Amino acid sequence: MSRSKQFTSEMELIEWLKKHASSNSRGLLVGIGDDAALLKPHPGHHWAITADLTVEGIHFSQRLHPADAVGHRALARSLSDIAAMGGVPRYAVVSLVLTRQTDRDWIELFHEGMRRLADRFGVSIVGGDTAFGSRDAMADVTVLGEVERGRALLRSGARPGDSIFVAGKLGASALGFHVLQSGGRAVDPEGRRAVESHLYPEPQGALGRYLASRKLASAAIDLSDGLSSDLHRLAKASKVGACVYEESLPIAACGLDASENKTFLRSLALHGGEDYKLLFTVHAARVKLIPPRFRGLNIYKIGEIRDHRTGVKIVRGGKLFSLKPEGYDHLRQR
Amino acid sequence: MSRSKQFTSEMELIEWLKKHASSNSRGLLVGIGDDAALLKPHPGHHWAITADLTVEGIHFSQRLHPADAVGHRALARSLSDIAAMGGVPRYAVVSLVLTRQTDRDWIELFHEGMRRLADRFGVSIVGGDTAFGSRDAMADVTVLGEVERGRALLRSGARPGDSIFVAGKLGASALGFHVLQSGGRAVDPEGRRAVESHLYPEPQGALGRYLASRKLASAAIDLSDGLSSDLHRLAKASKVGACVYEESLPIAACGLDASENKTFLRSLALHGGEDYKLLFTVHAARVKLIPPRFRGLNIYKIGEIRDHRTGVKIVRGGKLFSLKPEGYDHLRQR
Repeated sequence: MSRSKQFTSEMELIEWLKKHASSNSRGLLVGIGDDAALLKPHPGHHWAITADLTVEGIHFSQRLHPADAVGHRALARSLSDIAAMGGVPRYAVVSLVLTRQTDRDWIELFHEGMRRLADRFGVSIVGGDTAFGSRDAMADVTVLGEVERGRALLRSGARPGDSIFVAGKLGASALGFHVLQSGGRAVDPEGRRAVESHLYPEPQGALGRYLASRKLASAAIDLSDGLSSDLHRLAKASKVGACVYEESLPIAACGLDASENKTFLRSLALHGGEDYKLLFTVHAARVKLIPPRFRGLNIYKIGEIRDHRTGVKIVRGGKLFSLKPEGYDHLRQR
Repeated sequence: MSRSKQFTSEMELIEWLKKHASSNSRGLLVGIGDDAALLKPHPGHHWAITADLTVEGIHFSQRLHPADAVGHRALARSLSDIAAMGGVPRYAVVSLVLTRQTDRDWIELFHEGMRRLADRFGVSIVGGDTAFGSRDAMADVTVLGEVERGRALLRSGARPGDSIFVAGKLGASALGFHVLQSGGRAVDPEGRRAVESHLYPEPQGALGRYLASRKLASAAIDLSDGLSSDLHRLAKASKVGACVYEESLPIAACGLDASENKTFLRSLALHGGEDYKLLFTVHAARVKLIPPRFRGLNIYKIGEIRDHRTGVKIVRGGKLFSLKPEGYDHLRQR
């Protein structure tokens, strides 16, 4: 089947998007193609809404990230936020800005990466916008999720004495990015796993639902900018302090000798971004209800919530040190 | 009061945004500062959701558009879509990509322009994302609006015999842009009015509500890319043809001698973008219920819906000509 290498009009692109839109449609009254999409709310539920940017030169580069990974990551960021609210993601609105050089193959591959993930999570892409001609490509994905009334996992519910948990190893995405930058894919299977974590992060939606529907967590946040920064955010929202045990941190080491690269790997685990793991707190009376494994992921207790006067600390060799928010910050990078 | 010229961390910027967030909060359970905003739906209503991009070099330039106009326009685009659905805009999610050169003054002014419009329309800015370091600045605004069950104005409801209406004059924004490009503001009051229409377009939210709540319109679309393109979209969605009378078109002429510049002004009225006026169709039995004026705007009957075999036509001197969709198209511009 022949097809042109370029979309020649916005109408053609929108028709293509409409034809390839996800088909999950419970509650979707009008999808792509009108002035706005029309949605029917689900009785007894609230909406969680979040938006996340994915910008060329900041969140991805044409050289290191295949288009389907850019599409996957652009949606994964918002799905992870909905997971951290304990919600079920339902609808996505996708705005895409492309350069004059972007060809049709890139757009189709981007869309395929995004749609594969959307389909797995039962999310319909119901609208958005497109623009052509900027110098950097970018995507902005808004996701609307449902959560049962009163069950949302907020950042603000942690109390002194709560335990702090994380699901899965920390720093894997930053390590994968390091592997990609220093030469790419021809590494051992473990190194490839780190690259995979970076390119195709898996939002922990099922875990978020599990924690919210059983009221197991007092607070939750997803790790998008690094443990140190995101723990500070949770502590600030809850008006508490926190204490993390360095020896309890599950540090990703895929492809690198953990004993030789200890400082480097620990720094990625503490400050590396884009892990999209859930960090959550649990009241003492419920700690025993947290399973050690959930759908193939180990769940680790890494610390506890303290009074706000403690600040955010890390315990290393029996001593308390300040844990500064040194994760990713766009404004500090400039 | 002294303050730094730059935001030094994302946390500082987010705190600033939180402090300056709009305060309309009916139904808003959690606003800026958690993983997602949390909203309570309004019984008996559906949601309309839309997103619109505003990109430097495509939709605005630093030279011609003051920051508050960029903020106003970025939100106005989505408010106009909600107006064309007959909805009440409620929540906005704003993603902002800035260059390394963008200073704090620009961000504050952008935000002020957006917030002034949001406040007037009762819209709460409940979340979003920020990124710094692209080569072009841009904003993506997603708006969520409510519309009573069964009352949404779709593009698809027009039927042969319906009359076509537009509220306000056509081509004013394109004319204002022309005035700005050819030297700016030091023109007569009428020219300044055209510039004003371009920089601070007024979404026709009250008219959309009026038409939807009284079930007056069979279909509606907002004119964002020019009458010719948007009429084609409405006709296609409704599977009908349309006929527009050139002599009935309300052509904006502010600042230019209408008789001397007839062809130029007519071309702006037919194909000029960003007017954000509502184009709507009305069944013959309801035409008499359409007022000639609504809140200071003249309402003009400009044509009628025909069978789809007619295509989209314009009547000029008693003869039918094809009206091609020659409005703004990002892909054709490249």
